[in-house]
Amino acid sequence: MLTDLLCIQDSDEVSVCVSSECADIMTGGSQRCIVVSTLAEACFYADHGYDDILYAYSIPFDKVERCAALSERLDLFQILLDHPDALEQLRKRPLKDGRQWHVWLKLDCGNGRAGVLHSEPGALKLAEAIAKTEGVELTGVYAHCGNTYYCTGVEQIQAVAQETTKLTLQFMEKLKAVGITCKSSIGSTPTCSHPVKDMAQLSEVHPGNYVFYDVQQSTIGSCCLEDVAVRVLTRVIGHCPHRNQLLIDCGWAGISLDGAGKLPTGYAVIEGHPNLKLLSMTQEHGRVEPISGQLDYSEYPLGSLLTLIPYHSCATAVMHPVYHVHSEGRLVGKWTPTRGW
Amino acid sequence: MLTDLLCIQDSDEVSVCVSSECADIMTGGSQRCIVVSTLAEACFYADHGYDDILYAYSIPFDKVERCAALSERLDLFQILLDHPDALEQLRKRPLKDGRQWHVWLKLDCGNGRAGVLHSEPGALKLAEAIAKTEGVELTGVYAHCGNTYYCTGVEQIQAVAQETTKLTLQFMEKLKAVGITCKSSIGSTPTCSHPVKDMAQLSEVHPGNYVFYDVQQSTIGSCCLEDVAVRVLTRVIGHCPHRNQLLIDCGWAGISLDGAGKLPTGYAVIEGHPNLKLLSMTQEHGRVEPISGQLDYSEYPLGSLLTLIPYHSCATAVMHPVYHVHSEGRLVGKWTPTRGW
Repeated sequence: MLTDLLCIQDSDEVSVCVSSECADIMTGGSQRCIVVSTLAEACFYADHGYDDILYAYSIPFDKVERCAALSERLDLFQILLDHPDALEQLRKRPLKDGRQWHVWLKLDCGNGRAGVLHSEPGALKLAEAIAKTEGVELTGVYAHCGNTYYCTGVEQIQAVAQETTKLTLQFMEKLKAVGITCKSSIGSTPTCSHPVKDMAQLSEVHPGNYVFYDVQQSTIGSCCLEDVAVRVLTRVIGHCPHRNQLLIDCGWAGISLDGAGKLPTGYAVIEGHPNLKLLSMTQEHGRVEPISGQLDYSEYPLGSLLTLIPYHSCATAVMHPVYHVHSEGRLVGKWTPTRGW
Repeated sequence: MLTDLLCIQDSDEVSVCVSSECADIMTGGSQRCIVVSTLAEACFYADHGYDDILYAYSIPFDKVERCAALSERLDLFQILLDHPDALEQLRKRPLKDGRQWHVWLKLDCGNGRAGVLHSEPGALKLAEAIAKTEGVELTGVYAHCGNTYYCTGVEQIQAVAQETTKLTLQFMEKLKAVGITCKSSIGSTPTCSHPVKDMAQLSEVHPGNYVFYDVQQSTIGSCCLEDVAVRVLTRVIGHCPHRNQLLIDCGWAGISLDGAGKLPTGYAVIEGHPNLKLLSMTQEHGRVEPISGQLDYSEYPLGSLLTLIPYHSCATAVMHPVYHVHSEGRLVGKWTPTRGW
């Protein structure tokens, strides 16, 4: 490709920023109150002066020691769990200097991924066990609503937001009834793009993808296509008149395979060319064809640029070792994200 | 995830090795005669002492200057093109010190990606134009047979190998008839895993993925599942009895989305657990469920390991910043691949 990713990036699930420059913008320079989904990101931000970090991912048991080290080093490092066995891991590794493990309980309020099901008696029991365990503090209840990704339109998004908020607040009431108070958080970019009134009763929200948005979010209804702040620039590298196709120098190594079969324009929207479709890709090649009619190759000389708006900016951003940030046609920054786990 | 990628990696299309240690093995230590699909790889290997490098990718026009620099610096740097406009770019940038551009003509012999169609009169004309251009040498004719990826079984693979070889050799005859001799190369891992006799008439072949293989190659028939030399280790991080599922700490950021809908076991084969299916993934989570029956969670305690054999090792390897190489249960190396373009 001509360049690596243009603009800035974020995770699909939590308030993660995978470059410190981006996180500086997202936190308004405070470098506090961030949510990450990998321990590598937590360490990266801690090393860049960040604090008050929530590692919002059911704690993998091999990472307990590194989480303990961060808990002992930062003012506030928070973890998340959804199973009594994870609590047992924390019990076996008390923190030094009288410090507490700051633990969020992950609740599944219909998302269908991580979390103990809100309606299960075990959920309340686990919250109580966390709260009662010596050296451990129940910091909050955390419900992600990634099920908004199946929505179309504001009404459906808000129905999920309302339901998740309602179930979370009901759970908070149950906790209160047994004498426990703590924070509450729900999130997802669609929900937080169209919040419902009751969300004001939560302690916090945790969107992520909003910092970029993408074509997927525009089809869900979180944003307009004009709001999307990420592009992949690519060049025409082949003319294939016998197949009525162009080849571009962007394959799945440059934009990811996310979005297969989801858009009439294929794996991306090709900006300014509504009749073009990114039909298929191999590692470094993309096949582009017209949605209807014959290609006029004189419009797409070899070497000319096309601009791809990704279906899923998180998936695209992961493929790039550097992001080029621009404003009014000028490059103003070059951001390097962290990777790995 | 517990670790990054286990083992070694390669590109899906050409004899690329994206770590220098791997390339050392593949070249038997000679550090010569390699094929890459990105200019970043070409520069990486040049910087690591490699020479005789073919950048087997229709030259993007923005990269002509960097290719010129490599051509002027290495003993032998070779490029590839499939359009007269690309030749014109070379004509406009003569190499210094009387050096020649070493150019392969990319021929499409049924692959349906890059290359001028073998049967088009333009193919021969372009070969002649390359051969006649001052400062440019026609080094060879290059036909990739990635269409073997649609094959099942040795017979189908060899039919493609035979057809591609036949068409390439016929083209070489046409060249000979107009007084041109040069090298010829065809390739793809399936073809080179089951070569046909006539391939001996070619100057060289260019497989890539073979250095790892993967589940895809085993379903095509290039190899057995036992030949696959790449794994992703993952941990159980969640029990979801209300959905009869496990969660693992490997999402598409760890194994890629390649292989969707292709295997009864989902996006990967879970080694030693033929009844498990990697059903779906988000960025950092994988949902695993039994193909039939109910999960016995006592078999999969939180923290326990599962081993994923990737559908497409190239796509998986791209997701990892480091590869852990092991032998007989011991880690023997840690390889860092190059990235970008």
